Amino acid sequence: MQQSTICALSTGAGGAVAIVRLSGPLALDLLARITRTSQTFMPRRQTFCTLYDGEGVLDKALVTYFQAPHSFTGEDVVEFAVHASPYIKGRLLELLCDAGAVPARRGEFSQRAFFNGKMDLLEAQGLCDLISAGNKAAHHLAMHSLEGQLTEQVENLKQNLTALLAQIEVRLDDVDEEMTPLSADFITTELRNAIEAVRKLTDSFSVGKLIKEGLKVAIVGVPNSGKSSLLNALVGFSRAIVADACGTTRDTVEESLDINGQKIILTDTAGIREHALDPAEQEGMRRSKCAMEAADVILMVSDISQAASAEEEKLWQDVQAQHKRTIIVQNKSDKQVRKTGLENSAHNPVIAVSCKTGDGLDALKKELTCEMEHVSNEGGIVISNLRHYEALLRAQTELESALLQLQQEAGGEIYAEHIRVALRHLKDLVGEVTPDDVLDIIFSKFCMGK
Amino acid sequence: MQQSTICALSTGAGGAVAIVRLSGPLALDLLARITRTSQTFMPRRQTFCTLYDGEGVLDKALVTYFQAPHSFTGEDVVEFAVHASPYIKGRLLELLCDAGAVPARRGEFSQRAFFNGKMDLLEAQGLCDLISAGNKAAHHLAMHSLEGQLTEQVENLKQNLTALLAQIEVRLDDVDEEMTPLSADFITTELRNAIEAVRKLTDSFSVGKLIKEGLKVAIVGVPNSGKSSLLNALVGFSRAIVADACGTTRDTVEESLDINGQKIILTDTAGIREHALDPAEQEGMRRSKCAMEAADVILMVSDISQAASAEEEKLWQDVQAQHKRTIIVQNKSDKQVRKTGLENSAHNPVIAVSCKTGDGLDALKKELTCEMEHVSNEGGIVISNLRHYEALLRAQTELESALLQLQQEAGGEIYAEHIRVALRHLKDLVGEVTPDDVLDIIFSKFCMGK
Repeated sequence: MQQSTICALSTGAGGAVAIVRLSGPLALDLLARITRTSQTFMPRRQTFCTLYDGEGVLDKALVTYFQAPHSFTGEDVVEFAVHASPYIKGRLLELLCDAGAVPARRGEFSQRAFFNGKMDLLEAQGLCDLISAGNKAAHHLAMHSLEGQLTEQVENLKQNLTALLAQIEVRLDDVDEEMTPLSADFITTELRNAIEAVRKLTDSFSVGKLIKEGLKVAIVGVPNSGKSSLLNALVGFSRAIVADACGTTRDTVEESLDINGQKIILTDTAGIREHALDPAEQEGMRRSKCAMEAADVILMVSDISQAASAEEEKLWQDVQAQHKRTIIVQNKSDKQVRKTGLENSAHNPVIAVSCKTGDGLDALKKELTCEMEHVSNEGGIVISNLRHYEALLRAQTELESALLQLQQEAGGEIYAEHIRVALRHLKDLVGEVTPDDVLDIIFSKFCMGK
Repeated sequence: MQQSTICALSTGAGGAVAIVRLSGPLALDLLARITRTSQTFMPRRQTFCTLYDGEGVLDKALVTYFQAPHSFTGEDVVEFAVHASPYIKGRLLELLCDAGAVPARRGEFSQRAFFNGKMDLLEAQGLCDLISAGNKAAHHLAMHSLEGQLTEQVENLKQNLTALLAQIEVRLDDVDEEMTPLSADFITTELRNAIEAVRKLTDSFSVGKLIKEGLKVAIVGVPNSGKSSLLNALVGFSRAIVADACGTTRDTVEESLDINGQKIILTDTAGIREHALDPAEQEGMRRSKCAMEAADVILMVSDISQAASAEEEKLWQDVQAQHKRTIIVQNKSDKQVRKTGLENSAHNPVIAVSCKTGDGLDALKKELTCEMEHVSNEGGIVISNLRHYEALLRAQTELESALLQLQQEAGGEIYAEHIRVALRHLKDLVGEVTPDDVLDIIFSKFCMGK
């Protein structure tokens, strides 16, 4: 089948410059037609050209030709850097389509790059994540995928398992039993190593997800414990580097901020009591509970200048019942201390904070992000994509089954089959055996023009 | 003074690719620092580079170096085509600024291009208009300025007047009267030609403004004359090519649409009666009047299947009192005709329309845009910028004064001075004598990164 030539706008709305990208066998023909020239375009050289619309001039633009296979897609590619007027952008795409190009689907350039072996599926998804990365941590994560570090680990795993499988299979075929049998210890060690490597990746998913989507933090506390001040202090200190606007939900207010390069989503249950129409205490409790259920971390705010109350003790029981990572914030540390702490809080980090003086805020921020930061700084590979996680988890399950069968002294053909299926899941991860319709779905999540 | 090195994002928000532009003496140094390489960058060649952030990789990007003076600004320019993530864009600009660049002001790249003689002020403003052009007509207008056609005409004018002035001045210095005097006829002809050329440009301003800003059309008519149906028919037929979203004002609804490549802003006074809180008749009339006052063209909608009414006659008098271009729309032409028309409407175009069958709508659209279309198709030079209009008008006034003085047989030094001032206004137009602070204001209206 003759491949079509696709075109799309690769840059965003507005701006002074826009890039229209063209990829496919007709790219050079269309370039010649729209510039009305028979000149030879040197690959990768930006050439100043007049673009024509019939008899008239559409624009004067910098045009670059990338010769197949040395282009992003692996096909002939032409990029037009035009003036970013709504008219020019729209009209250029119209003219290209009139002359034989078709509008690219979302992610179609990347999909072609994948089909032409320019990158595997892990790298492609790293690229997609890279473009949407809004903070340092998410950027690092995506860069690792894009640089092929995850690919490398998966390839290593595949190689080891393939070698192991070959050794098992050759003995299954060896009906005369001429070869030395493999020792169960050897197979066990190989499988354990593989399981360990896969588990390291699947274990990283919980943190990877946090880095990519942001750490959801619920601030809870009895009325007047200082929830609002704490929220304001945290947001105010970092507002200068907040990337996204805050969103609002019906019941609670979410504020997205950047702490130490990590995305944090604070869910504010403060001020709830004032607005509740139902009996105040009950409604406040209900909403705090919802926020806690959705959160990754709970900040339990306690005013240490007040004596302990039955109300606070009740809330603290609710917090503990969530069994989540909880940080106890001893608020108003600048005032006279009237209580020493909450009961049974020994295994939770406790941080004394004064929103008035700012004392303790840095320590709180460090505590909040430590888990994610540890991972980003370590430079280890982190999984943040659900599809990758699921494929790895399936591979892990198969390898564990293989190990179990081996321990139960099952026949080689039984555990060989589990290893074979595990290998298929790993191949699926890099896109070796992924069906076309699945690929279509994956690439359709990419942005336009990529 | 050592020129600074400026940087800015040149592309819009979102997208897959973003361009960060760097211009000034440090451009190459900063490129070497951020790519950590001592390689020589061939001018205009897109090179795939790794961009570093400290020890880490910020991005892998296509980088192009444009060597002074062969660049947009005339300085050394480097363009980074990076992945369009919010993080990468922001961080790259931060890194460049940490290393010695400064953020560019709006239009500062263009301003430098102007100072380095890469384009004059007329071309620069054409560029600014080009980027904001949302329809075909505005695009053509801007392209003419950018291509230097207006510059050429102004240069011709300047040359002719400079030559004339030289001939007058040399005789003012000729105290011994050794030279043949210039004939009054010769000077008159030269001045008349110049005035005619300038007037052609100033006359085009009214249409140029319409093309750039859009033709404001008020649809008026008594209740049930079919204003809403007409609006819907006009908008519905062209909705597919509507570029901008509609805006709303407190009193009336504006709908911006594209008819035959021209921008039309329909002001809808339909449905007013229903919502008015004041006595209905009065309020409707008041609002129609406001819309008419703001409009360039009035569409007077009359239901020809209804007998003439006193109410309609009153409205028609109000319309005529506006002394504006008015088109009479004889609506419901598919029904039985009960009246022949409005009184004294002989010098207005009358178009019979049926919103039900669509008859007459094309004729109405043609009539609406004919004035602008005539100008765009003719390819003549059209002024659409208020600063240009004012400078030309001042030049015209001076030339007319010169002619008047000549006819009143004033001394040569008197009309020579008027010609000198006219020349200064023309020089101001192309930016030859424009003070720096005025230039700052002009360029600050440009978009970021240009």
